[in-house]
Amino acid sequence: MKDWKTIEELERIFHPRGVVVVGASNSDGNLGRFFLEGFIQLGFENLYVVHPNEQEVQRVKAYATVREISGEVDLAVVFSPRETVPQIVRECTLKGIKGVVICTSGFGEKDGEGRRLEQEVVEIARRNGTRLIGPNCVGIYCPSSRLANFGFLPKESGPVGMFSHSGSLSIMFIIAAAAQGVRFSKVVSCGNECDLNAADFLAYLGQDPETSIILAYLEGVKQGRRFCQLTREISKEKPIIVWKGGTTEVGARAAASHTGALSGSAAVWEAVFKQTGMIKVDSAEEMLDYLQAFYFLPLPRGNRVAIASGMGGLGVATADACIESGLELAQLSAHTGRRLEDIVPTVGTCTDNPIDLGMASIFNPQLYIDTIEALGKDEGVDMLLITSGSWESDYMKRVLAVVAEVEVVVAVAAVIST
Amino acid sequence: MKDWKTIEELERIFHPRGVVVVGASNSDGNLGRFFLEGFIQLGFENLYVVHPNEQEVQRVKAYATVREISGEVDLAVVFSPRETVPQIVRECTLKGIKGVVICTSGFGEKDGEGRRLEQEVVEIARRNGTRLIGPNCVGIYCPSSRLANFGFLPKESGPVGMFSHSGSLSIMFIIAAAAQGVRFSKVVSCGNECDLNAADFLAYLGQDPETSIILAYLEGVKQGRRFCQLTREISKEKPIIVWKGGTTEVGARAAASHTGALSGSAAVWEAVFKQTGMIKVDSAEEMLDYLQAFYFLPLPRGNRVAIASGMGGLGVATADACIESGLELAQLSAHTGRRLEDIVPTVGTCTDNPIDLGMASIFNPQLYIDTIEALGKDEGVDMLLITSGSWESDYMKRVLAVVAEVEVVVAVAAVIST
Repeated sequence: MKDWKTIEELERIFHPRGVVVVGASNSDGNLGRFFLEGFIQLGFENLYVVHPNEQEVQRVKAYATVREISGEVDLAVVFSPRETVPQIVRECTLKGIKGVVICTSGFGEKDGEGRRLEQEVVEIARRNGTRLIGPNCVGIYCPSSRLANFGFLPKESGPVGMFSHSGSLSIMFIIAAAAQGVRFSKVVSCGNECDLNAADFLAYLGQDPETSIILAYLEGVKQGRRFCQLTREISKEKPIIVWKGGTTEVGARAAASHTGALSGSAAVWEAVFKQTGMIKVDSAEEMLDYLQAFYFLPLPRGNRVAIASGMGGLGVATADACIESGLELAQLSAHTGRRLEDIVPTVGTCTDNPIDLGMASIFNPQLYIDTIEALGKDEGVDMLLITSGSWESDYMKRVLAVVAEVEVVVAVAAVIST
Repeated sequence: MKDWKTIEELERIFHPRGVVVVGASNSDGNLGRFFLEGFIQLGFENLYVVHPNEQEVQRVKAYATVREISGEVDLAVVFSPRETVPQIVRECTLKGIKGVVICTSGFGEKDGEGRRLEQEVVEIARRNGTRLIGPNCVGIYCPSSRLANFGFLPKESGPVGMFSHSGSLSIMFIIAAAAQGVRFSKVVSCGNECDLNAADFLAYLGQDPETSIILAYLEGVKQGRRFCQLTREISKEKPIIVWKGGTTEVGARAAASHTGALSGSAAVWEAVFKQTGMIKVDSAEEMLDYLQAFYFLPLPRGNRVAIASGMGGLGVATADACIESGLELAQLSAHTGRRLEDIVPTVGTCTDNPIDLGMASIFNPQLYIDTIEALGKDEGVDMLLITSGSWESDYMKRVLAVVAEVEVVVAVAAVIST
């Protein structure tokens, strides 16, 4: 299923010797210039601008056409008006550029003229062996090659790869996840997918040694069968976390005018999620939660979870949530049971799993600490879930110190942060 | 269905002339003293302590028994060991106290001896017309009467009433909601419900003029039929937002050892939610979200929503979420359509609902402002949902200024706050 030729072409796109930003200008609000700033901030050096009327943009020399550039260029990022794009792509092929990202909108998603232009662009590229990303997208981000598609993105690389049918959502996601300490390998905004599509990006990230967690925001998928086969293979090695938009009829109509995509029915997608091992999320928050779990925690050795909470109700509701997620509540050993009876106060508490440490735990972190140590030694426990209402920072530090020492996987959550 | 006698008894409990805290002491970690501090912080004046060995706790005079107190006392809050509770309740009845909150744990939820003691306490109270809350609870909070069940709770009263089968969850909730500007009328921790139960508290809050929004965390409900009839009546006038714990078999077992409650199957509760008009939430976060919506927004005149987003993918996913929640996407008028075509840039955007303002909206709040104004004038729009990835504060202020001026209900959400 892996199209090695395409993977190799993408490898070149993600590691270009030179990049030209076509359509960056000094005008107010010019998006091309904003992207150019992104490249400069990340320190990409062989940078060129093409614009009919500019001499220089952000201290980068501007040429009238792509062909006038003398240096090696492997990637063009295009912001010019739609009617100029066929000619620009033609010039890119003449310059030998094998990857063109078309950020310009107003193609297939817009109207008949846009569809015609999109078709024309594809034909020019195909004839010349040039691959296209977009149109109607925000391009690619690859910090290890210093490629940026926006200002203020992290310079450091990490193990998360992402492709998205919403460009701005992908950028928002890089920024939001970065605030949690998460870093990315490659992020692609797919746009209308006139040439390279979600299945190609998935195949690429699946074999990319820099990528060990894959995220996707999807509307429609063009090569459905191939995409599903790839997810089945790749999800055995790398988690694929997917937020699917356009699952209702109304959402699907909106998706059609967003990226011209066919969304597929909710029922079909339910089945796809079940069969392929993709992880389904329904919101940005849920996507961030899954991402953090895979990013910061090792995989547990099994699905038996022990819950310790300072609030009985929270323990009960957490147990429900674990069972609904397919986990099992661990059967604690007799030894652990005796140990917990020593640790936990006798009233207003519970030493069975889910363990309720009671009100005293509000004042006394040692209750959590001793409980975590005891549970961490129980062979029947694969994961610990430690919850509280909220944590004061010194208290939290003491609890986290012991979490770092036990051998099982521990997740610590404050249910509400005030 | 309303038991007016019970409502009157609860009215007295929530507005006591004097309160005695039984079992507060100067020992380290004594919970009674912590609650006493709550009363003092809120400025409750006719406060007494009963303890066998103390002269004074937190400058409040301590008596050896309840009967020795000379002032009027309508409410006792008990923290003494379980074996002393029957005698304490007996003395309360002799003193003419009509409401006793038993915070002490280790009764019906614990073992046979606990069940026997609980039964004994109930019999003493019933014989003497004294009503009980608990045992195994954290009591009541009513800021308008200066009743607190914990330190550091807000002094100001508000329209939210709550009853909860998890005491610490209710306190965490007061604190978390307070951070969002939400204030409470009355909060009750139900505990084991040996006498007064969830149906009584619901009936009381249903007719309480101070309360217009009702929250509940429930495990089991003792008077199921009465409770359902009450919710059907009351939910017509006041939203009842319910988080039900113990919906899985494992969670139900945990609930049984938490408050001795019978949880009922998930299927039964699904049906109850459908038939009674209660609003089902599945997490603390969801409860807070609903609470804020009812607290800060007026009820919309209908269910037609217009969505404006700066990110296409977010608009699509938000449309899905609205449809799945039973809302309708508003059909915009021809006039609004023309106005939006003037406002919104022509490419990479969408002027149909959900409206995609495109990348330019990241830099230009005026796009949101003009769009909100245009949609606010459309008779076919009952609600506006304005979303973005995240908002910078000056930008946000400008957008919120226009939100305050339009007549339809507007919700503004940043999907991820970094």
